[in-house]
Amino acid sequence: MNKTKLVLGVDVGGTNTVFGLVDKTGNVFLIDSIPTHGDKSAEDLFKRLFEKFYQVSEDAKEDFELAGIGIGAPNANYYKGTVENPPNLNWEYVDIISLIKKFSDAPVALTNDANAAALGEMYYGAAKGMKDLIVITLGTGLGSGIVVNGNLVYGHDGFAGEIGHTIYDPQGRQCGCGRKGCLETYASAPGIKRTVMELIANTNFKSKLRSVSYESLDAKFITELALQGDKIALEAFDFTAKVLGIKLADAIAHTSPEAIILFGGLANAGDLLLVPTKKYLEENVFHVFRNKVKILKSELNEGKSAVLGAAALIWHELNTMVINQ
Amino acid sequence: MNKTKLVLGVDVGGTNTVFGLVDKTGNVFLIDSIPTHGDKSAEDLFKRLFEKFYQVSEDAKEDFELAGIGIGAPNANYYKGTVENPPNLNWEYVDIISLIKKFSDAPVALTNDANAAALGEMYYGAAKGMKDLIVITLGTGLGSGIVVNGNLVYGHDGFAGEIGHTIYDPQGRQCGCGRKGCLETYASAPGIKRTVMELIANTNFKSKLRSVSYESLDAKFITELALQGDKIALEAFDFTAKVLGIKLADAIAHTSPEAIILFGGLANAGDLLLVPTKKYLEENVFHVFRNKVKILKSELNEGKSAVLGAAALIWHELNTMVINQ
Repeated sequence: MNKTKLVLGVDVGGTNTVFGLVDKTGNVFLIDSIPTHGDKSAEDLFKRLFEKFYQVSEDAKEDFELAGIGIGAPNANYYKGTVENPPNLNWEYVDIISLIKKFSDAPVALTNDANAAALGEMYYGAAKGMKDLIVITLGTGLGSGIVVNGNLVYGHDGFAGEIGHTIYDPQGRQCGCGRKGCLETYASAPGIKRTVMELIANTNFKSKLRSVSYESLDAKFITELALQGDKIALEAFDFTAKVLGIKLADAIAHTSPEAIILFGGLANAGDLLLVPTKKYLEENVFHVFRNKVKILKSELNEGKSAVLGAAALIWHELNTMVINQ
Repeated sequence: MNKTKLVLGVDVGGTNTVFGLVDKTGNVFLIDSIPTHGDKSAEDLFKRLFEKFYQVSEDAKEDFELAGIGIGAPNANYYKGTVENPPNLNWEYVDIISLIKKFSDAPVALTNDANAAALGEMYYGAAKGMKDLIVITLGTGLGSGIVVNGNLVYGHDGFAGEIGHTIYDPQGRQCGCGRKGCLETYASAPGIKRTVMELIANTNFKSKLRSVSYESLDAKFITELALQGDKIALEAFDFTAKVLGIKLADAIAHTSPEAIILFGGLANAGDLLLVPTKKYLEENVFHVFRNKVKILKSELNEGKSAVLGAAALIWHELNTMVINQ
């Protein structure tokens, strides 16, 4: 009897690292996590991860073959197989591919979390069957994964797809990257919080948001208030959508995707964000692309999305290798 | 004896249509042109073109095999093989591939002039050996061709690569496309003329440009004056480079090219444009890409560049087909 081929998808997060066994069609047979302990080494993390993985998959090990390992990690470089100065992790420069070889002989591929999310949507989510798409992850920052003709755009150095660091306003908000006015200072969880503070300063609208500090505010609460009709919360979504729509119009002029998929915390606001983003995008896009590009919400199960993305990466590699042989 | 395989490269311009016979390494064995007569049909143009081509290649026809035909044309769609509402041509919607079949059985491929220029630079010009690049054509407008991993980015609809219609300033200059502040209203031959007029209005610098009307002004004259130290001409180049540098920084954040190649009329200003463009680009680019991307001037022979680009398109197709077989 042929063993079922499964891949191990791993998503390295700042707090937890999630892993799961996934088949080619996106069924997740096992999902578990360990604390990342970002202050310790990458070797420490993967040693604990494989111990836990071999332990929890012990009973099933006769029934499946580990076909590959896909890893999503911050600041990952697909070409080099490295992670370089990841935020929140004390790793500096780590050759992840070589490190994994200590624990498994299976083929390994590595990319950043937004690129993994893009492949996840293409294989298992809202972009199924598409070959040209952009995934925008709206979380602590704004990440992006660009797919052209069925393949991720990595660029010459492996770091392509940084739409969060295109400039909306050169005189705008200070960005963590050292420049001003980057898209992610507007369209992200902290971005919409900054917009709320600006609206509190600049308007006289009554709002429950006036009694909340910046630090205790989160995107979920802004969403709840917007759904209740809070004027500042609604305006904050509208402005976020405007900035996002304008810059996505630029992104479309580069790679002309079939769809743009919004993923992550802020995207959970659904139509509150999607409807005005689509409106502003259409108002600002070059006429050649007007009414052509779909704006969609991620269709990956939230608890499994990171693992599915990492699994899609290695399935994509294995598929491509088969085709190239 | 094997016949030499040559391709026919054709560049459809608003005034003249240039064609030439090109081998795989970029040697041009024949180059000629006919008037386009944009008021007449596409069939009229290609009928005259093939008559002229068969006539001028008559003596050599025993010595070569026509391996393919590559065509660069305005508003061309690679996927559909069509030209749609080209500016300056009274064609509306033409199925070029089917039309060419009336005159030749050779394989045909069609793309717009900026995409052809990008392949021309990759095969025969400044981007030889590169797999990730962007070519910016600075003429009447700003065209762009984006290459990712050795292939042109066409996008879902075949119209990707419109960097000239990304927005520099939403309250900026009126663009022919109906929107405001598109990059090409600043970085193009008419763009730098508009900048000269703005500088005449806003400054008190003495300048020979004050005695020239907008209509009699051209980019070449601005270049000559800049080389003589004319303050307005120099400022005009500096501002053009600033806008271009800022928007190219955004483009890099999308596809992370190894080089950006500047092509066409305004690029002939050379270092006058290249040096400040590089400076502003580095000042504005996301730190991950800093000091990584080369800014180069086209290395294609100006008289042959359009034909070489169109020839590169069909050689690229023929190469890719061989690889895929």
